[in-house]
Amino acid sequence: MNQDQLKKMVGELAATYVKDGMVVGLGTGSTVKFMVDALGQRVAKEGLNIVGVPTSDRTADQGRHLGIPIKNVDEVDQIDLTIDGADQINADFQGIKGGGAAHLFEKIVAINSKRNMWIVDQSKMVQTLGSFPLPLEVIPYGSQQLFKRLAAKGLKPVFREQNGQRVLTDSKNYIIDLHLGEIKAPFELAQYLNRQVGLVEHGLFLNVVNTVIVGYDDGPKVLQAPERPSYQQVQQN
Amino acid sequence: MNQDQLKKMVGELAATYVKDGMVVGLGTGSTVKFMVDALGQRVAKEGLNIVGVPTSDRTADQGRHLGIPIKNVDEVDQIDLTIDGADQINADFQGIKGGGAAHLFEKIVAINSKRNMWIVDQSKMVQTLGSFPLPLEVIPYGSQQLFKRLAAKGLKPVFREQNGQRVLTDSKNYIIDLHLGEIKAPFELAQYLNRQVGLVEHGLFLNVVNTVIVGYDDGPKVLQAPERPSYQQVQQN
Repeated sequence: MNQDQLKKMVGELAATYVKDGMVVGLGTGSTVKFMVDALGQRVAKEGLNIVGVPTSDRTADQGRHLGIPIKNVDEVDQIDLTIDGADQINADFQGIKGGGAAHLFEKIVAINSKRNMWIVDQSKMVQTLGSFPLPLEVIPYGSQQLFKRLAAKGLKPVFREQNGQRVLTDSKNYIIDLHLGEIKAPFELAQYLNRQVGLVEHGLFLNVVNTVIVGYDDGPKVLQAPERPSYQQVQQN
Repeated sequence: MNQDQLKKMVGELAATYVKDGMVVGLGTGSTVKFMVDALGQRVAKEGLNIVGVPTSDRTADQGRHLGIPIKNVDEVDQIDLTIDGADQINADFQGIKGGGAAHLFEKIVAINSKRNMWIVDQSKMVQTLGSFPLPLEVIPYGSQQLFKRLAAKGLKPVFREQNGQRVLTDSKNYIIDLHLGEIKAPFELAQYLNRQVGLVEHGLFLNVVNTVIVGYDDGPKVLQAPERPSYQQVQQN
């Protein structure tokens, strides 16, 4: 099975988890694209009645084109299920997102969802997070001082650039990637990052995902994360 | 003594704390304006050699006009002393800022300063914080959901509006004011707010100020906060 066939299989399997009447968070990425295509087919063939809440303009356009009604996160009561990709997932089902510089909006959609599913290929599954650089969205004003503090803490920060220019997010902020190699204590690191002034959001998604579908060479495999208080519940306390 | 005379006296006293060679954070507000005027006079008369780091365009313009060299927070190594206003200061020298919707940049300047001085009139001094609404700068995307969570938590959120439009900060975010009445545990509240996704920065300035100059009817009074680990030191741990 080639890579695209595998992604298509994973995306189509994920789409079967969407039930009639659901508000569905729609992530971004190549596997998610196959999932949204499959949802569009179900809307056309089965008359599946859903609302999609996209995490990017690209997915919004794809959804509209397929006849999926699209609303933004503030126009719905709550999201029933969000299906998105991830950049890295560890053995404890904790994840890193933000390789596409969109983790702020992705996290806003994720924490407003009752359940979250990530669909990935096997290369994203790791024992310990951190070989994928951890993205931070930061306010440009004072970002050089924040960078110095992160460096002094040993967090190996690098401003993300494209064509010699600093990457700007949809909120016109910079991305700093932390080249940590290994994140042994993701919850402690998240607490530290949450305290930093000028840091809008980090790419650690902790206790967020409920179900992961992984594309292995011999086909997709569904993994269930342990049931535990959701990120949103923990946040409320 | 009328209000303006008192503000002028407080501002001029604050300006005497600035020493030759200092990098000085320059806040915003009517009392700070008198302080910057006094600094400009010292630059002109004494040849005082300083660099000003402003928290707003208004103060930057005033400083330049007075011949004070102006740099932004990322162009200096560190700030020696920042002099700013505050909206409320409690008996433990903890403060609320953000009435002017600028607390994000003000906090960025403050935490990059070795020492902070606030200059206020006596009406800002209170036993317990909270009768002044606590400002939050929030990402517009998802702000309605964040608002609902804050309301469910009993934090009495109100979107700040001007002329029927939501106020936008310099970073194009919204302001939500929490009408708490009384903030009994500011550190706990700050921790809760730090965890909220989409909340860029709250207006609690905890363990930030070192010196407060208060304008009382019979003249200015200098108060020293207890020496304790700075916000920046605490943040690094």
